[in-house]
Amino acid sequence: MAKPGIQLNDGRMRAVIERVTPSVDGGRFAAKRIAGDEVVVEADCFTDGHDTLACLLLWRREGETSWNETPMAPLGNDRWRGGFVAATVGRYQYTVTAWVDHFLSWRHDFARRLEAEDLRVAALVGAGLVEDAAQRAKGAARTRLKGWASDLRAVSEAQALKALGLDEELAALAARYPDRRLASTCPVEHPLTVDRERARFSSWYELFPRSASSEPGRHGTLRDCEARLPAIAKMGFDVLYLPPIHPIGRVNRKGANNAVAAQPGEPGSPWAIGSAEGGHKALHPELGTIEDFRRLVAAARTHGMELALDIAFQCAPDHPYVTEHPKWFRWRPDGTVQYAENPPKKYQDIFPFEFESEDWSGLWQELAGVFRFWAGEGVRIFRVDNPHTKPFAFWEWAIGELKREYPDAIFLAEAFTRPRVMHRLAKLGFTQSYTYFAWRNSKHELIEYFTELTQGPGREYFRPNVWPNTPDILTEYLQFGGRPAFIVRLILAATLGANYGIYGPAFELLEAEPRDPGSEEYRDSEKYQIRQWDLQAQHSLAELIARVNLARRDNPALQSDDSLLFFPVDNDSLLCYAKSDIATENLVVTVVNLDPHHVQSGWVELDLDALGIDAHLPYQMHDLLSGARFLWNGARNFVQLDPQRAPAHVFALRRKVRTERNFDYFL
Amino acid sequence: MAKPGIQLNDGRMRAVIERVTPSVDGGRFAAKRIAGDEVVVEADCFTDGHDTLACLLLWRREGETSWNETPMAPLGNDRWRGGFVAATVGRYQYTVTAWVDHFLSWRHDFARRLEAEDLRVAALVGAGLVEDAAQRAKGAARTRLKGWASDLRAVSEAQALKALGLDEELAALAARYPDRRLASTCPVEHPLTVDRERARFSSWYELFPRSASSEPGRHGTLRDCEARLPAIAKMGFDVLYLPPIHPIGRVNRKGANNAVAAQPGEPGSPWAIGSAEGGHKALHPELGTIEDFRRLVAAARTHGMELALDIAFQCAPDHPYVTEHPKWFRWRPDGTVQYAENPPKKYQDIFPFEFESEDWSGLWQELAGVFRFWAGEGVRIFRVDNPHTKPFAFWEWAIGELKREYPDAIFLAEAFTRPRVMHRLAKLGFTQSYTYFAWRNSKHELIEYFTELTQGPGREYFRPNVWPNTPDILTEYLQFGGRPAFIVRLILAATLGANYGIYGPAFELLEAEPRDPGSEEYRDSEKYQIRQWDLQAQHSLAELIARVNLARRDNPALQSDDSLLFFPVDNDSLLCYAKSDIATENLVVTVVNLDPHHVQSGWVELDLDALGIDAHLPYQMHDLLSGARFLWNGARNFVQLDPQRAPAHVFALRRKVRTERNFDYFL
Repeated sequence: MAKPGIQLNDGRMRAVIERVTPSVDGGRFAAKRIAGDEVVVEADCFTDGHDTLACLLLWRREGETSWNETPMAPLGNDRWRGGFVAATVGRYQYTVTAWVDHFLSWRHDFARRLEAEDLRVAALVGAGLVEDAAQRAKGAARTRLKGWASDLRAVSEAQALKALGLDEELAALAARYPDRRLASTCPVEHPLTVDRERARFSSWYELFPRSASSEPGRHGTLRDCEARLPAIAKMGFDVLYLPPIHPIGRVNRKGANNAVAAQPGEPGSPWAIGSAEGGHKALHPELGTIEDFRRLVAAARTHGMELALDIAFQCAPDHPYVTEHPKWFRWRPDGTVQYAENPPKKYQDIFPFEFESEDWSGLWQELAGVFRFWAGEGVRIFRVDNPHTKPFAFWEWAIGELKREYPDAIFLAEAFTRPRVMHRLAKLGFTQSYTYFAWRNSKHELIEYFTELTQGPGREYFRPNVWPNTPDILTEYLQFGGRPAFIVRLILAATLGANYGIYGPAFELLEAEPRDPGSEEYRDSEKYQIRQWDLQAQHSLAELIARVNLARRDNPALQSDDSLLFFPVDNDSLLCYAKSDIATENLVVTVVNLDPHHVQSGWVELDLDALGIDAHLPYQMHDLLSGARFLWNGARNFVQLDPQRAPAHVFALRRKVRTERNFDYFL
Repeated sequence: MAKPGIQLNDGRMRAVIERVTPSVDGGRFAAKRIAGDEVVVEADCFTDGHDTLACLLLWRREGETSWNETPMAPLGNDRWRGGFVAATVGRYQYTVTAWVDHFLSWRHDFARRLEAEDLRVAALVGAGLVEDAAQRAKGAARTRLKGWASDLRAVSEAQALKALGLDEELAALAARYPDRRLASTCPVEHPLTVDRERARFSSWYELFPRSASSEPGRHGTLRDCEARLPAIAKMGFDVLYLPPIHPIGRVNRKGANNAVAAQPGEPGSPWAIGSAEGGHKALHPELGTIEDFRRLVAAARTHGMELALDIAFQCAPDHPYVTEHPKWFRWRPDGTVQYAENPPKKYQDIFPFEFESEDWSGLWQELAGVFRFWAGEGVRIFRVDNPHTKPFAFWEWAIGELKREYPDAIFLAEAFTRPRVMHRLAKLGFTQSYTYFAWRNSKHELIEYFTELTQGPGREYFRPNVWPNTPDILTEYLQFGGRPAFIVRLILAATLGANYGIYGPAFELLEAEPRDPGSEEYRDSEKYQIRQWDLQAQHSLAELIARVNLARRDNPALQSDDSLLFFPVDNDSLLCYAKSDIATENLVVTVVNLDPHHVQSGWVELDLDALGIDAHLPYQMHDLLSGARFLWNGARNFVQLDPQRAPAHVFALRRKVRTERNFDYFL
């Protein structure tokens, strides 16, 4: 730890620092990493002339007053790199400092000097620099450096002098006490958000609690959800996500299939939040009590899962806020509250908040309090409904507030909107983001989109969470592709996205009927009515899902997105890609038949260099879904996939390695 | 003019502004434009929800306190664009402001409303917004808006109300008085440097005055240079660049061909600046007097040329600074000044300045004074020698200082060094930069390098100045390629670079002998001795150079670099590219045979769409060097180039256009 001696406006500060990475909008927003990651920072550092530069990476946890320092090493072409391990969750900062190091410059030149007289004069210059270093050192180091300096002044024989001047150990010692008075420090303290592992790797299961009852006709409860935990855990999910669990408004309540008026007894939409029973901090009475909720939180934990709540900042007309805080709504000249609308469409069951209210700060505090309330009940994952219809500044503040108190909190942005808007939400603090995956079906689209997600500038802050379906999205592909389509989209989601989720049981039971032709809404959607699901049905994908999730748990390659690499296949219906994990040398290659109707075959061409495979040795492809093992040779191999039997391979690739004794073995 | 109402820390400011372009390092440095250019600014602007945004480009000359405002228009995908004309040279600033416009949002929704009651309530809302606008308006506008508001309240018939609400003229009037209290303004005021046209388009001729004498054996003078002006102007150059014209040091003076010690009577290197006769503000006595210099400046002007001086901040050992300002040099323990060296090489005739001097600010002031002195003598173009061996901060300050006083000053950075360093110099203020052109000879290299220069991020600030030779650079290509090589490199430089130059008369007289095999130094270099040139020699390229420069003057396409576009040719020795000027519809296509030894032929494939050519009409290719005219058809056309006759075509491309009367004519 040290305070860099920064002097501004001193024309003698000759080092220049540019293009620090990672950098999100020049340091306006935080890059994201996971606790335990090595954070690799690079910068262009250079100076005028031919002097030698020294560069340090400075880093600290936000709020610390002094910097930790790590040397940076040159990569060539004036690029420097250093790294630090972000050990724990929270906010960090980093920047770069650099200076012209006269001692290192001197040593570099000294090594190239040839003439005796030249060496002698140079040695005197060096002695002065070493004496300065000695002044900055203490104890034994100071004594040794002083000794070195006086030797440099005393020795006169050229060979001996050169050896003395180039002494490696003494040079390393002197370099430890540099003159940093004229160091330049990048003025931007780049922020970094460090999350827990689940931010990078999570498997979500969405479930309507009111449909979780095991008895037909009875309203499902949180206790019913608790009973379902073992089965969901067995499928391999680690996040159980519940749509809003608050009291549902009675005024202007919607009926089944989004009918404008509910019939008596109809339950309404859980997103029409608030009634006489309470609002965003209350539980819908038919779901159970707060004690039931606490039991569910605790029970989920014992199954290695955690609960995610849906936070939807909008109100039913009978939400208590409407009377208690009329300023939080926009009033129309006819004395009514402005309901949600997209003319000519009207959503009279939903009042949006008026964020341009005079009392905007009161509103902000109250909404942040909703997160704080549920965090106090043990919830750490929030799926936020339509964040793009509330001000960006609000989210940046609210997420920052909660994460200061609960740095392990995770926020998933449910914004299916324009790219800039989705990216802004990710930059300002959302931990994960929904994607356009549901509408990317062709090989070209999938390659382009996932290359952008994993290689584009968003890779520093936009963590995709990939869903084949949601209660709002029943895609055409699922409607018409039958069982193979569900399997294809499941495997794509689970292997392309380290974070993925399904809306069940609709998904595993292949629910595919739209409300109307051309609509992406489900017929008899759970959004407006209670459904009874036959979880034991023969056609359930539960067992396959369990195998897919097990492959994800067993293979670190599938637990992050950075390494994604697509490979050519000479058939546009076949998609092939790999993910790898360097630390464990784990490598997974997936081949998917995107055509749910026909058998497709083709030659896959792996990039063996990129995968680190010796082209002269066979390698094993172990299908983690079927258990089959194949021996492949070279880059090009043949694949045939029958959608009726198995529309995809998820291969663990095991390399053969030539050892010193010339034995081969699979890693 | 208006001051935007910026309120910070108001959570109701909902507009977001990102990715303003042009932007050099996030606004740390200025983008560059030419006086009269339209400066096109874009930004990502968006807000939460579905409200309508309004965006303005704010711009001003540096130092003005209020902004000029120009509306920005949406391009789709949340990108907005606006522009302003930077009429005069100097520094400008620009930024972007945006706000959620409730009146525009209301109008957008009102147009989509269908029901009578809905329209009536909405009209009341609108009336309130229009009344607010009326409060912000004055005079007649206020009266009209008030009238509109009361009509909106009074009319009740749906059709009439809708027509009233959508009145285009009244809407335009109301939109002129927006509520900008909650506008967001990008906090970065992006700087812009606006230069005069010569910064973008210039033709340089470098000449050693001491070799300009018309009588053998006599030291050339500034008067001799004056006598040469008509011939140089006839060749079409507009910048006459002189190596340093200051007194040359006598101590450790170099001899011919860089001999360590000069023989008596040898003139030394003009870059070893300073002697008893004076330093950087003095003239070498043998060149003439300050009156001669002023005559030369004035005479150049009458020939449409201007003088560029070489500013080399280094000293001969007998420069007056050494005794007058010992602190500006680094002293060695043996009591001598540290000369320039790159161990084991030593340059005892050159003392570098010690920029880490205690008196660094005194040094900075003095050096800035050198520019100011010569600017006072009418010089506005400075070619700066090795700027990368002096601190970046010094240049940023010194160039800024001089340009504040002389905004028409042009600085050319002579830095042949690593890319980051060259870019930093361009960013911090150098107007033009030398390039790697001299060492880019193959088709692949030329395409890659000039694509990077004209399309890469440097295009906003790095203006290439392209030289086939300099006194320090006699390339292998010129050494071995004979006359065709000189023609090829001339035409490449003059058509790839809107700014280019040659070092003459060595260039036009095909001087190609290196000092040693493998060296890029000239034998009997003018750097160390006076040369006598036979300007009337038969083999002189002067006449061809004149034709090339005339083509540059006549064709605006060749006067800027942004439009450069390369085209495929099925022969790697043939390079084809176009430049265009939109305003004048001027189009120049150059085809060069890069092989100076053999006839080469091939099929050129123009991108007719990009060039705006109707594929169904023939077009004329007028060779500006030979005068020949060819009629070409379609994208693919055959070209054959004999290096002994003409190694290149520089074609003015004249489109045929189908007119209404069905006549064709060439533009």
